[in-house]
Amino acid sequence: MGTEDMRNSVDIEIARSQKPKDIGVLAEEIGLYPNEVSQYGRTKAKISLSVLDRLKDQKPGKYIVVAGITPTPLGEGKSTTLLGLVQALSAHRGRNAVACMRQPSQGPTFGVKGGAAGGGYSQVIPMEDFNLHLTGDIHAVTAANNLLAAQMDARIFHELTQKDGPLYDRLVPKVKGVRKFSAIQVRRLKRLGINKTDPDSLTDEERTKFARLNIDTNKIMWNRVVDLNDRYLRKITIGQSPTEKGFTRETAFDISVASEIMAILALGTDVEDIKERLASMVVALDKSGNPVTADDLGMTGALLVLLKDAFEPTLMQSLEGSPVLVHTGPFANIAHGCSSIVADRIAAKLASAQGYVATEAGFGSDIGMEKFFDIKCRASGDTPHCAVIVATVRALKMHGGGPPVTPGAPLHEVYVQENLELLGKGLCNLGKHISNGTKFGVPVVVAVNRHGNDSEAELNLVKDYALQNGAFRAVVCDHWARGGLGAVDLADAVIAACDQPSTFKYLYPLHDSIQSKIERIAKEMYGAGKVEYTDEVLQKIKVFTEKGYDKLAICMAKTSNSLTGDAAVKGAPTGFTLKISDIFVSVGAGFVVPMVGEISKMPGLPTRPSIFDIDLNTETGEIEGLF
Amino acid sequence: MGTEDMRNSVDIEIARSQKPKDIGVLAEEIGLYPNEVSQYGRTKAKISLSVLDRLKDQKPGKYIVVAGITPTPLGEGKSTTLLGLVQALSAHRGRNAVACMRQPSQGPTFGVKGGAAGGGYSQVIPMEDFNLHLTGDIHAVTAANNLLAAQMDARIFHELTQKDGPLYDRLVPKVKGVRKFSAIQVRRLKRLGINKTDPDSLTDEERTKFARLNIDTNKIMWNRVVDLNDRYLRKITIGQSPTEKGFTRETAFDISVASEIMAILALGTDVEDIKERLASMVVALDKSGNPVTADDLGMTGALLVLLKDAFEPTLMQSLEGSPVLVHTGPFANIAHGCSSIVADRIAAKLASAQGYVATEAGFGSDIGMEKFFDIKCRASGDTPHCAVIVATVRALKMHGGGPPVTPGAPLHEVYVQENLELLGKGLCNLGKHISNGTKFGVPVVVAVNRHGNDSEAELNLVKDYALQNGAFRAVVCDHWARGGLGAVDLADAVIAACDQPSTFKYLYPLHDSIQSKIERIAKEMYGAGKVEYTDEVLQKIKVFTEKGYDKLAICMAKTSNSLTGDAAVKGAPTGFTLKISDIFVSVGAGFVVPMVGEISKMPGLPTRPSIFDIDLNTETGEIEGLF
Repeated sequence: MGTEDMRNSVDIEIARSQKPKDIGVLAEEIGLYPNEVSQYGRTKAKISLSVLDRLKDQKPGKYIVVAGITPTPLGEGKSTTLLGLVQALSAHRGRNAVACMRQPSQGPTFGVKGGAAGGGYSQVIPMEDFNLHLTGDIHAVTAANNLLAAQMDARIFHELTQKDGPLYDRLVPKVKGVRKFSAIQVRRLKRLGINKTDPDSLTDEERTKFARLNIDTNKIMWNRVVDLNDRYLRKITIGQSPTEKGFTRETAFDISVASEIMAILALGTDVEDIKERLASMVVALDKSGNPVTADDLGMTGALLVLLKDAFEPTLMQSLEGSPVLVHTGPFANIAHGCSSIVADRIAAKLASAQGYVATEAGFGSDIGMEKFFDIKCRASGDTPHCAVIVATVRALKMHGGGPPVTPGAPLHEVYVQENLELLGKGLCNLGKHISNGTKFGVPVVVAVNRHGNDSEAELNLVKDYALQNGAFRAVVCDHWARGGLGAVDLADAVIAACDQPSTFKYLYPLHDSIQSKIERIAKEMYGAGKVEYTDEVLQKIKVFTEKGYDKLAICMAKTSNSLTGDAAVKGAPTGFTLKISDIFVSVGAGFVVPMVGEISKMPGLPTRPSIFDIDLNTETGEIEGLF
Repeated sequence: MGTEDMRNSVDIEIARSQKPKDIGVLAEEIGLYPNEVSQYGRTKAKISLSVLDRLKDQKPGKYIVVAGITPTPLGEGKSTTLLGLVQALSAHRGRNAVACMRQPSQGPTFGVKGGAAGGGYSQVIPMEDFNLHLTGDIHAVTAANNLLAAQMDARIFHELTQKDGPLYDRLVPKVKGVRKFSAIQVRRLKRLGINKTDPDSLTDEERTKFARLNIDTNKIMWNRVVDLNDRYLRKITIGQSPTEKGFTRETAFDISVASEIMAILALGTDVEDIKERLASMVVALDKSGNPVTADDLGMTGALLVLLKDAFEPTLMQSLEGSPVLVHTGPFANIAHGCSSIVADRIAAKLASAQGYVATEAGFGSDIGMEKFFDIKCRASGDTPHCAVIVATVRALKMHGGGPPVTPGAPLHEVYVQENLELLGKGLCNLGKHISNGTKFGVPVVVAVNRHGNDSEAELNLVKDYALQNGAFRAVVCDHWARGGLGAVDLADAVIAACDQPSTFKYLYPLHDSIQSKIERIAKEMYGAGKVEYTDEVLQKIKVFTEKGYDKLAICMAKTSNSLTGDAAVKGAPTGFTLKISDIFVSVGAGFVVPMVGEISKMPGLPTRPSIFDIDLNTETGEIEGLF
């Protein structure tokens, strides 16, 4: 995600120089029927999930995940490599190939990070559409997330200010003399063990049980979200208008991509599955410690209706005209950081048995790839055939002890000149990420994403090390400068890897205890010697286990800038202690989230955000300053 | 807006029974070129503003505003009448005719009010697209509004925590050794009277002046927004995370359609005009009492980029296939409540000299129509040819002393049975709204929107009264039940009215003082005897006048449920005192907003919102329970 600073200014010029083909033409090229395609203008189209029904007997293509080593803050070019690979496979090797990517959050676009459309001659175009609004999915997630929050707080208020009788009467009002439960209210009754359908037949006790969710305002797990970097919303007090009669509470806004709803859209296998996951989201505990769900608040149908269009992936294209399916963008630390299962499946069906689907996993293999295998592939049941680990000489030098790499600041000379010693010391980081891949039984191809200053000796050192340390192949790529042509060796390596017999397996079985699963990940993926928990975390694990949440997958929230829990620690240390400072559960998404230290769910804007550079040329209609 | 409860359940069935034509076909029918149309699926299309250039020599069609009497909380069918009229003009009278409507807020859709797509056989279809997301314009306004808020608070924080030198260095950083102002920073320098372009050449004093906006946190005029009914956000405290170092402040979220940005989109005549208005929005005063603008915060370009697609109106269709342009939806009390100038203009050009454009003004003539004439027509310079005042027997009975009309509750029998006495007493309200129209020199056509229980005697009484009290024509309409055919008499009356010579004039000249303009509106439109101001308001008027804001138009924020400031007072009283309790200014939108009492900018959800009825049928893909 993101590219080197010096490259940014030319990315948009390269993107502009290539006029995208009408997206309807591309849709036809990849075998979609007109009734499966809803164009949003000329460069974007929503793809109907009905294509999965039509192609249900089609054999899927090979499934490739693109992950990375522990990155510098500049990013090591994972999106770029994904796009270069797909361009090489399709335009230069004549294979059916589709790239699957996440929709980026709009927040960082206006902060420091810039867009996430890849770069150079391996970009999604138009990059301004990709980085802004797209087809509105994140806005829909925001609306759904916040309607649930509004309904929860409104319900708390109405319960606090109404007696049992009037509360029940308002929840089940007489309409033209007749009282009726809505379908979602009948579901709640059933969960409460009240098998009645006539509202007038409930006893007083049953009425109270039905009408009072009794949410414990100290045990609310649902925040509001905005798709923005808005640091002042990290902790707020709401309900301070006199109309709320003093029932204030502390809460927070997170960035929209951190919403559990985003993770659910990404992990749902079809609309029914998404519906069940949304219904089961736990928004709070009641005063007896029992979970209160979105369904208890009457919200499932409203959420589905708001998300209806967001179920569908968006088709775009790369600079060389290869198909790109963009769909969902869950946070890569507190969620699993992969694009959607339905997009990957549609891509696999369209690619067919002789084709390839490449999909991205956020951050390094310890974060994104582990979750891709253990959470996403487990939810879908799909089998991956190859993992690509993207590495750069720059990042490996940092792991060897090079000075910090900072966005906006010039690169230190060790990154600009040949330095085999630093590089050699940092290769351990790559080694760890390779072995993380092979532990899952998947062949690992190392893609060295070439930058202008890299020497041949440096590139060869990385390749040789990779091959001696478990990589199936290791190739140098130059797709940023040369597009698909620069990734032909990578494509050939990936084709060979996908022809290997698959021995894919998960890292842990779901039936293990929460602690055992955490320890497995910490020791095997991060290199930790042991895991420590606070008493509070241990208490929460006990409660989760009682409620049956111990059977869920584990989604570690850890810094992506180190294999350890400390962002400053580089390389590939072993034997360290990983400290779990908090833990929460996303019941709808289907995972328990152990927190390794503080993970901010709301970035901030710097003193001089990229806002100052962004403009619309009102004569040409072109966007300026976006990268 | 909205229709009678008993009608709602059938509206969606009628809408479903009619399959919309491909919106590309409709676009071609009304004379749009393919390159001016961006389809969003099959039923919606964005229309490029370039059509205004292509048709710049085309004579525009006749311009009709549809307004109403003082409504009941159920709404009297203004949108329905607008659509019935356009269907009658186009399908039954063979004229070019286009309906222009506001995009409704999503908030009330999930509350009690329901959608705003018209009703019966006079609806916009698909109504679920119209009521939810549409083409994302409100989401874009929300994003733009909130990015401005985030940038303001981040800037306040950075100024509070940095000394002059580092603050300046961060605002104008060295990039590869070179320091450069961005274009928007140069604009700020010019406003400060610093005519320098080399960042290193500024004196220390100039650097401080440039770098410190010195926002007075007690004088912030910019709220965040959400497109939701979320009562707990009416008053909040932000910045409570330790990362904000104690710099908390009180603020609020409003509903998105209350954003000044929405009013600007509606009032801008082209992109350049919108740009200037956005740049000049005043978000706060500094510690010396000087305005701080969006441009000072570096935001103008970023706002434009976020709003790029939202500049374009969305083409949809009515149930009978007539064209409907949907664009913008500013609040009808704290803003002017009309759809956009650019949509009306595109419609007028497409309709051409022999055609008709009907556009809606929110609430009664005292609120929506007055602002349509004095704010919108003044901004556009366009001349209206006819005003339609929609009336119902039901609402007039309420004005005659009938019991309150409440959504969800059965109608009292006086509304169901003939009652000429109550009706006769309430006709004064209609009389006032007719004279409000004629005061602007525009012929007024009264459209009596027939409901099932209305007797012939009642309908005749309304018609006769209207004709005796200044209406150009008065007709009974039955477009809810019969579509365009039920509004043919209305169409004929409107055609005749538009053939009258126009003597249109504004109610007040801009150069009058703020108080004089307020009094003109209060006395002439509402029937007030005098206007009272609090001392605080008088003080604010003095400040506004010093800053030159007294030359702006007036946008009264008053209850829409009464001609007076008291929502409970019905009929058409005279001689009352109108109390101005607060006043603010929207510099970008171009109006001063006097507040008559508290006007909530954030609705709430009731105990049982329509959320409980809304569902997605996962088998058919159809939305249920939305109305």
